Amino acid sequence: MTGNAREAGRSTIDRVLTLLEALDQPQLTLTEVATKADLPTSTASRILTALEQWGGVSRGTDGTYEVGYRLWEIGARASKASVLREASRPALAQLSARTGESAQLAVLEGGSALIVECLAGQNASPIATRVGGRLPLHASAAGRVLLSYADADFIAKVLRGNLERLTPYTQIMPGRLAQELVAARRRGAAAVQEEMTLGRSSVAAPVRDRSGTVVAALGVVVTSNADLDRLLPQVRLGARDSERRLADADSQKWVDGHSAITSAPPRMSAQLEPVG
Amino acid sequence: MTGNAREAGRSTIDRVLTLLEALDQPQLTLTEVATKADLPTSTASRILTALEQWGGVSRGTDGTYEVGYRLWEIGARASKASVLREASRPALAQLSARTGESAQLAVLEGGSALIVECLAGQNASPIATRVGGRLPLHASAAGRVLLSYADADFIAKVLRGNLERLTPYTQIMPGRLAQELVAARRRGAAAVQEEMTLGRSSVAAPVRDRSGTVVAALGVVVTSNADLDRLLPQVRLGARDSERRLADADSQKWVDGHSAITSAPPRMSAQLEPVG
Repeated sequence: MTGNAREAGRSTIDRVLTLLEALDQPQLTLTEVATKADLPTSTASRILTALEQWGGVSRGTDGTYEVGYRLWEIGARASKASVLREASRPALAQLSARTGESAQLAVLEGGSALIVECLAGQNASPIATRVGGRLPLHASAAGRVLLSYADADFIAKVLRGNLERLTPYTQIMPGRLAQELVAARRRGAAAVQEEMTLGRSSVAAPVRDRSGTVVAALGVVVTSNADLDRLLPQVRLGARDSERRLADADSQKWVDGHSAITSAPPRMSAQLEPVG
Repeated sequence: MTGNAREAGRSTIDRVLTLLEALDQPQLTLTEVATKADLPTSTASRILTALEQWGGVSRGTDGTYEVGYRLWEIGARASKASVLREASRPALAQLSARTGESAQLAVLEGGSALIVECLAGQNASPIATRVGGRLPLHASAAGRVLLSYADADFIAKVLRGNLERLTPYTQIMPGRLAQELVAARRRGAAAVQEEMTLGRSSVAAPVRDRSGTVVAALGVVVTSNADLDRLLPQVRLGARDSERRLADADSQKWVDGHSAITSAPPRMSAQLEPVG
């Protein structure tokens, strides 16, 4: 698959989005961005220049590119992510304080679980999990919880897909995984031992919005010798606490007409909230 | 200025970026997005559909649009914003706890000060300031600090521009503002009384990176009868604390080859950090 072969059938919008995806770490050179995005250097350069003028990417003194403040600002307007993060933070803080490990909140996005908030306890490696990171649906507790509440077609597609064996213990047999998903729904939680990383286990429970829809999974990642049965009720309690706060935030949203979660207007004006 | 008149000279990239800007609150209808972006409805619809398929915008059950997780994820890769937020959080927590008011960190982005982190004290209105919100450069303490360290051409452009009178006390005379900027640099802090909002004052100090470049302003927003002279040293101390943590994070960055601040690769693989 060469750049030119793919190039032909792609719209400009696709190219812009592919380039945004390619900016997956700081300090990328033009060549690196073009290679990652599978775009000709000239096309990548043109898009990067437009993005830079807009503030979406910033350029270092060494000429390398990274995601800039303007894109951060746009992303910060994702009200679902902000509301979920706010609602889950007390529960995540309690879980990470009690276990000394990483507590995380993940949502189903594309084909994996996207970590929207993460608090590391004192025993956790500081880079063990990170906001914006992703977990595989089949091999993490959070992923399995999210997958178990997805619609049947999506579940079938994931089970039929490429289930990567990440450790010797990763469950990759579709039938067994399907059983695990049923069990996760019945228990209102999932526990996964060393299926993603040797020496690490995870426990997660679903977080529902006011309509009863599962919108996230809240969990902890611990050493594999931890007592998961003791952790399960704590994780479920944390999920309930997040649900209550989420419902409160939703009520507030209706009262305020979204004012509590929307961002300020992009231009300065007398409509601004009292801030200074 | 009609949609069609502007339409003619715009590239697709410009249209996509303009549409992203238009998504400034949740639950926007197609017509609202098209109007805000000054785009024909058909163009807006086409871009929104592409963005939705990608996950950049999400559509509610009522058919309205808002920024989605995928854009949030891209934004979360803005390493400068993440590092600054992490580095300033302890100082912001201390300032908001001591004053009971909102402490905020802002960066210069475009023609205004972009709030990248904000912690509200118990006396602060919960929506008084918000992450992702913007402050005018001429009428807020954070804005004035950032402006005072900007390059001369930029300062001249702002002083020659439209300085909006937000309250009867807003300083809009270019010569007087220039004096205020000189004073802000000399004092290493700015204090602004009721120039942005009646009844509210703000104090801010610059935050420098290891090279000595001012990268942010850290400040508090308080009631206008507060003792600003007493607040100034606290704000300066908070800025120093943030600088120390920023320098530490920078050192860490070099050691880890950016691993502490980059996001996980977009696809699942065995390269993933140990997370579950």
